[in-house]
Amino acid sequence: MSALKERLAAIRGEVEDALARFLPSAEGDLTRLHEAYRYSSLEGGKRVRPALALLACEAAGGEPSHALAAGCAVELIHVYSLVHDDLPAMDDDDLRRGRPTNHKVYGDAIAILVGDGLQTQAFELLVREYGEDPALALDLVRLLGEGARKMVYGQAIDMAAPEHFPKEEAALEELHRHKTGALLRASVLLGARVAGLRPGEARYEALDTYSQALGLAFQVADDILDCTADTATLGKTAGKDVEQGKLTYVALLGLDGARAKAKALEVQACSALNEFGEAAETLRALAHYVVSREA
Amino acid sequence: MSALKERLAAIRGEVEDALARFLPSAEGDLTRLHEAYRYSSLEGGKRVRPALALLACEAAGGEPSHALAAGCAVELIHVYSLVHDDLPAMDDDDLRRGRPTNHKVYGDAIAILVGDGLQTQAFELLVREYGEDPALALDLVRLLGEGARKMVYGQAIDMAAPEHFPKEEAALEELHRHKTGALLRASVLLGARVAGLRPGEARYEALDTYSQALGLAFQVADDILDCTADTATLGKTAGKDVEQGKLTYVALLGLDGARAKAKALEVQACSALNEFGEAAETLRALAHYVVSREA
Repeated sequence: MSALKERLAAIRGEVEDALARFLPSAEGDLTRLHEAYRYSSLEGGKRVRPALALLACEAAGGEPSHALAAGCAVELIHVYSLVHDDLPAMDDDDLRRGRPTNHKVYGDAIAILVGDGLQTQAFELLVREYGEDPALALDLVRLLGEGARKMVYGQAIDMAAPEHFPKEEAALEELHRHKTGALLRASVLLGARVAGLRPGEARYEALDTYSQALGLAFQVADDILDCTADTATLGKTAGKDVEQGKLTYVALLGLDGARAKAKALEVQACSALNEFGEAAETLRALAHYVVSREA
Repeated sequence: MSALKERLAAIRGEVEDALARFLPSAEGDLTRLHEAYRYSSLEGGKRVRPALALLACEAAGGEPSHALAAGCAVELIHVYSLVHDDLPAMDDDDLRRGRPTNHKVYGDAIAILVGDGLQTQAFELLVREYGEDPALALDLVRLLGEGARKMVYGQAIDMAAPEHFPKEEAALEELHRHKTGALLRASVLLGARVAGLRPGEARYEALDTYSQALGLAFQVADDILDCTADTATLGKTAGKDVEQGKLTYVALLGLDGARAKAKALEVQACSALNEFGEAAETLRALAHYVVSREA
């Protein structure tokens, strides 16, 4: 196993343990809500967002474990969005991370509440874990709020009828900068802020540039995987974007063009980290992994 | 018009103006998301929660307008919960505040996103408007988070199959302390905190007692109205609780018993305010209004 994969596996373990502690216990719950919170939050998932928070904190000279709670807060926003996205009224997906989706197990109503409650708890987590430094905690709430709000706007763009969507790269980028990019960016910036960096500082802005290139690379790679991987490997239904007639980077640029685009974004992301030296080695490896992953 | 009604009407105007400023403009939006945010947030509604925030701030010796943004943040949480509650997967309601529900106008998927995005913006609003005092802003985020999380748990209790719900007053109170009580309590505590009071101080705890009695009174009155008012007056479908076989205070205590209970809670709420003198006069009048309102 590569050093990056080992590191990501270690972070996954830390994240699962932390989320298991943070989320309310299923015991003594009069409903199945708490069980349903845990069902979608505690098993599976690549935990890319928490990893970005920890690794950005490390690159910025901070102690990575200080960003664990911030990374978990972003992950809770991500999980809430998946639970709502999978609902019949939205993407209507039965399978997520290789298991039945939340609403398939608990019903649509509980799944709506699960998403709602996980979002609340993401903000509560920041307050609880960073509240001793109110100025820091408030900056984290602000960054997470911006990411979560833009994500929702991106989902609304994504749902607009495919025939009305402009077949242009700029429009596709606008979609993804919101839908997936905003939360990936928030992950990196939360980590940077936990390490003590602030907007306007060169290293904060460099990490911001990295995060935006990485976010787009992540999406281009997703579009490629949607065409080339199978459902079992992905742990979610493959070929869905094409089936729904959605514009993808593959449709716009062809498979080779999309691969070249992903590679260029990887290079752009890594260039932004030139000044960071060794401390950003894992972030660079992550950019490479995001583009070349197979699931 | 009574002094209370005049005051509430003035607050309603301030709240609508403030929400119209806070929410993103529908212009330049590529989707109908922003329009849908505004559709459910800007028209109608009694604005009881913002009123509680302003009046609690006033009772605690603060300038009521300082609590306007906090009250609007609670209202956004309330509106998000209504939009999700009305969805076919939950209460399946077509009518809210006398108009078609959000999903009837914009579709289920947008309505899910509207609720999600309004919740995010509630927290963002607190950060933006109180961020100059990070310790205050963080306390407000904490209070709002607790209220929003408990509300969701209350909704989950409410959705449990009626035949499994214990036919006991304690269980009904547990339901309502969460479902509606927690957010009404948060409204009052946000106002108290904006005025400078803190947990542990006698006046903060007195306002907390007031808020919990008021919250329960509000629900008992709701149960009474669900039996006695018609759909046109309520602006939402009347008789729904009974039709769905849900336990209500009227079912448990009879109509007269429920009325006596509401009155006793009003007295309890007002007694908690004994030390506040004139400054709490409007809060007292509000407790009376909540119990004797006709819609």
